[in-house]
Amino acid sequence: MYYIGIDLGGTGIKAGIVDEQGNIILKDSCPTGAERGYGAVIQDMANLAISVVEKSGHRMSEIKAIGIGLPGVMDSRTGRVPFCTNLGWHDVPIIQEMAKYTDRPVYVDNDATVAGLAESVAGVSAGCANSLFITLGTGVGGGVIIGGKVFSGSHGVASEIGHMVVVADGEPCTCGMRGCWERYASATALIREGRKLCADNPDTALAKAVDGDLKAITAKHVIDLAKQGDPDCAALFDRYVYFLCLGLRNMVSLYDPEVIALGGGVSHAGEFLLNAVRAKLPGMVFYKDMPFARVELAKLTNDAGIIGAAMLGR
Amino acid sequence: MYYIGIDLGGTGIKAGIVDEQGNIILKDSCPTGAERGYGAVIQDMANLAISVVEKSGHRMSEIKAIGIGLPGVMDSRTGRVPFCTNLGWHDVPIIQEMAKYTDRPVYVDNDATVAGLAESVAGVSAGCANSLFITLGTGVGGGVIIGGKVFSGSHGVASEIGHMVVVADGEPCTCGMRGCWERYASATALIREGRKLCADNPDTALAKAVDGDLKAITAKHVIDLAKQGDPDCAALFDRYVYFLCLGLRNMVSLYDPEVIALGGGVSHAGEFLLNAVRAKLPGMVFYKDMPFARVELAKLTNDAGIIGAAMLGR
Repeated sequence: MYYIGIDLGGTGIKAGIVDEQGNIILKDSCPTGAERGYGAVIQDMANLAISVVEKSGHRMSEIKAIGIGLPGVMDSRTGRVPFCTNLGWHDVPIIQEMAKYTDRPVYVDNDATVAGLAESVAGVSAGCANSLFITLGTGVGGGVIIGGKVFSGSHGVASEIGHMVVVADGEPCTCGMRGCWERYASATALIREGRKLCADNPDTALAKAVDGDLKAITAKHVIDLAKQGDPDCAALFDRYVYFLCLGLRNMVSLYDPEVIALGGGVSHAGEFLLNAVRAKLPGMVFYKDMPFARVELAKLTNDAGIIGAAMLGR
Repeated sequence: MYYIGIDLGGTGIKAGIVDEQGNIILKDSCPTGAERGYGAVIQDMANLAISVVEKSGHRMSEIKAIGIGLPGVMDSRTGRVPFCTNLGWHDVPIIQEMAKYTDRPVYVDNDATVAGLAESVAGVSAGCANSLFITLGTGVGGGVIIGGKVFSGSHGVASEIGHMVVVADGEPCTCGMRGCWERYASATALIREGRKLCADNPDTALAKAVDGDLKAITAKHVIDLAKQGDPDCAALFDRYVYFLCLGLRNMVSLYDPEVIALGGGVSHAGEFLLNAVRAKLPGMVFYKDMPFARVELAKLTNDAGIIGAAMLGR
C-alpha cells in the first residue's frame, strides 16, 4: 500500500505518493492561493493528490490514506481546523471538504508535528520510540513522538513547545503572554537582538553588513558574523544558544526523548549551531550524571512535510 | 491476583496489599531508619511486604508483583537508583537487593510518578488516558500518565516538572540552575516570600502570627491569612497562584492532559487554591477557545503511594 502526503504552506501546496518506509515515489506542487478561501485550496489539494497518484502509475485504490500537514491546529474529534492563522482559516471542516473529492481516509496535523513524525520514520530519529523535532524559524514549533506515534495530547494542543514560558514577564509574544520560548529561540529573536545592537551601535559589523538598513537584518547575518568571529554577533549568538538550551533543558526534563532534532531556518547554521548546543546543554540539564537526549540536525528538511503527512495514516 | 505497593519515605516505610482495582486490602508501616544504609532499609521493605501478605490471609504466590515508590529517580535499564537524596542513596542496586528476599518481580519509580498512577487508576483522574499529578510540597514533583501508563521518557528522567525553568536567571535552585518552577510554586516559595515580607515589615499580620519568629512561618500561615483577607498575604498568594498557573500553562501546552491533579502540602488549601487557579488559568493558556485540562485536587492523599506503587506491576 501507498500513502499520500500533503504539505500545505502559506505560499505553496506540495503533495507526494509515499511508500511504507517513508520514501517519496513522486511529488508535485502548486501555489496555495489562500486568498480564494478554504474551499478552493482544499479542492486544489485533492486534485494535486489525485494527479500525483496518476502520474506515478498507481491507482487511488492502492492508497491507504491521505495525510495533510498544515501550519495550524487540528481538532481530530470534530474533523475541523480551529485555527490556521497563515491561511486565514478559522473553524474549517477540512475532513468534510476533502470527502467531496476522495473516499480515502484523511488525517490532518500540525506541520511541525508532521515533520517530527517524518524524522522519526525516515530521518535522524528513525527507530527511536521517543523523539522531538523542533523548528527554529519565525516561531518555534515542535513535533513530539511518544512510543513511535505522534503525541497530540487529550485536546490536540500538546507540543506547543514554542509557547512554553521560560522568562516570566519577559518579551511580549504574539499569543498575548510574555516570555514564551519562541521569543528567545526563534530566528525572529536573533533579528530582534541584532536590530537592538545596531540601533545602539551604528558602527557594528552587523550594521555595516546591511548598510545601516536595520530592517534588512536576518538571522543569517547574525550567525554568519558570529561564525567569522565578530565579537558583537558572537555575544548575541551565545545568548541565543543559552536560551535555546534553557528550553532544551525543559524538553529533557519533561519529554526526555532519545533524540532532539533541530530544523527550521536557524538550523541552517549547521555544525556551528550544533557544536554550540552540545557544548552548553550538558551543564544545564537536571541530571548531569545520567544520559539524556542526543541533539542532532533534522535530516529531511524540504521533504519532511510530505513524508510525515503521509505517515499520519500508517 | 494481588499486588504489593511500598511507599518508601524519608521517615517511614508503608506497605499494602492491593487488588486489581487499586483497593487496599491491608496495610502496615515501619520507620525507615535511613542512617542504617540501604541494605537494612531494603530488607525491612521486603519483610514488611511479606508480613502484610501474611496478615491479610493471602500467600506470596498470589502476588503478581511488588512496586516501590521512592523520593528519587530509578534507572529501569540497570535496576539501580542513581539518586535518592532524602535517603542518602547513590547508585543503589534495589532490584538485586529485593531479589534476596522475594522471587516476585519488583518495579520501582519516583514517588510523584507513583502517586500520579494511583490517581489515574483509583483517584480523580481515573479513566483518563492522559493525566498529570503535581505535588506542591517542599519542591514540586510530577507524575505523568500518557496512554494510561506511567511516562518516564527514554532515560527515566521525564516528568521532572519542578525543574522546568520558568524564570530565566531567576531564584537559585538546589539543582544548580536558576528560576525552576519549584522555586515559585512550592510551599517553600510561599515561606520564602512570607519571610521576605516580614523582614521588611515587622508589623504585618504574618509576622504577628509567628510572634516575630520568621523561621516559624509556614505555607499554611500565609494561606490561612490570605483566606482571612489579610491584604499582604492575599498579595503573596495571588503572586504564588500566578506562578503556579504559569507552569500549568506550560503543562497544558506540552502534555495537554485531561486532568491535572494537585497534591502535596499546598493543596491542603483546598477549594481556596482550586478556585484561584480555575479563575486565573483560562486567561493564561495558549488556545483560549479550545478545551483544556480540568484542574482538580488529588483524592487519594496518604494512600496514593501504596496504591500507585502496587499498580506499577499491573
